[in-house]
Amino acid sequence: MRIDIVTIFPDMLKACLDESIIRRAVGIQLVEINIIDLRDYSVLKHRKVDDTPYGGGAGMLMQFPPFYHAIQALKKDNSTVIITSPRGQVFNQKTAERYATLDHLIILAGHYEGIDERVYHFIDEEVSMGDFVLTGGELPAMMITDAVVRLLDDVIKKESHENDSFSMGLLEHPHYTKPATYEGYEVPDVLRNGNHQEIAKWRRYEALKQTLQKRPDLLEKATLTKDDLKMLEAIKNELNKDSK
Amino acid sequence: MRIDIVTIFPDMLKACLDESIIRRAVGIQLVEINIIDLRDYSVLKHRKVDDTPYGGGAGMLMQFPPFYHAIQALKKDNSTVIITSPRGQVFNQKTAERYATLDHLIILAGHYEGIDERVYHFIDEEVSMGDFVLTGGELPAMMITDAVVRLLDDVIKKESHENDSFSMGLLEHPHYTKPATYEGYEVPDVLRNGNHQEIAKWRRYEALKQTLQKRPDLLEKATLTKDDLKMLEAIKNELNKDSK
Repeated sequence: MRIDIVTIFPDMLKACLDESIIRRAVGIQLVEINIIDLRDYSVLKHRKVDDTPYGGGAGMLMQFPPFYHAIQALKKDNSTVIITSPRGQVFNQKTAERYATLDHLIILAGHYEGIDERVYHFIDEEVSMGDFVLTGGELPAMMITDAVVRLLDDVIKKESHENDSFSMGLLEHPHYTKPATYEGYEVPDVLRNGNHQEIAKWRRYEALKQTLQKRPDLLEKATLTKDDLKMLEAIKNELNKDSK
Repeated sequence: MRIDIVTIFPDMLKACLDESIIRRAVGIQLVEINIIDLRDYSVLKHRKVDDTPYGGGAGMLMQFPPFYHAIQALKKDNSTVIITSPRGQVFNQKTAERYATLDHLIILAGHYEGIDERVYHFIDEEVSMGDFVLTGGELPAMMITDAVVRLLDDVIKKESHENDSFSMGLLEHPHYTKPATYEGYEVPDVLRNGNHQEIAKWRRYEALKQTLQKRPDLLEKATLTKDDLKMLEAIKNELNKDSK
């Protein structure tokens, strides 16, 4: 897979990538990541890529020509061009899984007050990271890259993916590691007694409980067994008692 | 305001920050941002901070003691401690606005398969960036920092905030900048004729249209005038014609 990120902050992205965990995937050639300086495609003096909005208003906009030429240079038949934008579809694990199957992903990082609308003629998908505003599209571009690259084989062991939150449709159960006791805080006994059946049952119960308490919306879409439904009843009783 | 980020990838965060737009806010002392190496608070040899899960399973977990000691060292009466986690409340502009009023925000960046549950005794809020999985909490920590710092006075002109998507309850209207024509793609005439009333009307119409087409859920919460409702009717008619 190849990922190209087009940005006016190439140094930030390069620094970020060089120190990140996904550098490993680049090292073993699972993915090629290129950081492209948008200013290399400027058609104006001083590598300028921004100008004031038509019709007036505050702030600067990114111009059409640099993106036009960058996309012409990078896009092949097998490329998908995306831009991070508040009006896009909200990014989720399904999107990451779909992107992980692509040959070539081109991510455009927006900046300033926005980009010239004509750029959208050349974009396949708009992706939003959520309902909040950032100074630019660099962190979203990094985040998409991170979420996609970690799904490529070998970057993180397959077994761990299968336990990820959202892959299973539930939040994860709580985790504990050594030491067993520290400053008066203890690991639950059940995890230390080596009974694997009880551990599995405790984990499922706690995963259902976390999900019920914090993201009940996920339960509606999750695949639940009869045992799960019984557990959910027990959890509701437990929580009712606690609140009395 | 002070923001402390506790991480096992301090170099990545420092590199990212040094090259980012929010460096300016640090420069003019609007905010102090400290990157804290979690390993400095390890209680084990070789600055180790991870271990295998109690009860078995794949992957490594982050241990309780390093976070315990880091929080003891950093937390004051006016501090808020948050962690990025899939089971948190989803981060949005309201959260960013609330954090921007705090004196001291401590952000813990998780990693590996998760962190020892006992750490949560010392956390005020869990924040999720959305329903997707990343290799670690560094990019979410950077994103929260970016969204918060840009709200502090002066980092970006106040006037531009007021036009942000989500602040107004609608998506933004399309933007255009010079050149007026390029490779056959043109800027709409209305934006070039200097009639400010018509421009304002066009922008409102297009903002409503973007929102109706891409994020109709936002319209339910937006404050709409009688004129807006008339425009929405016209937009629906226009879209119905297009689809025939």
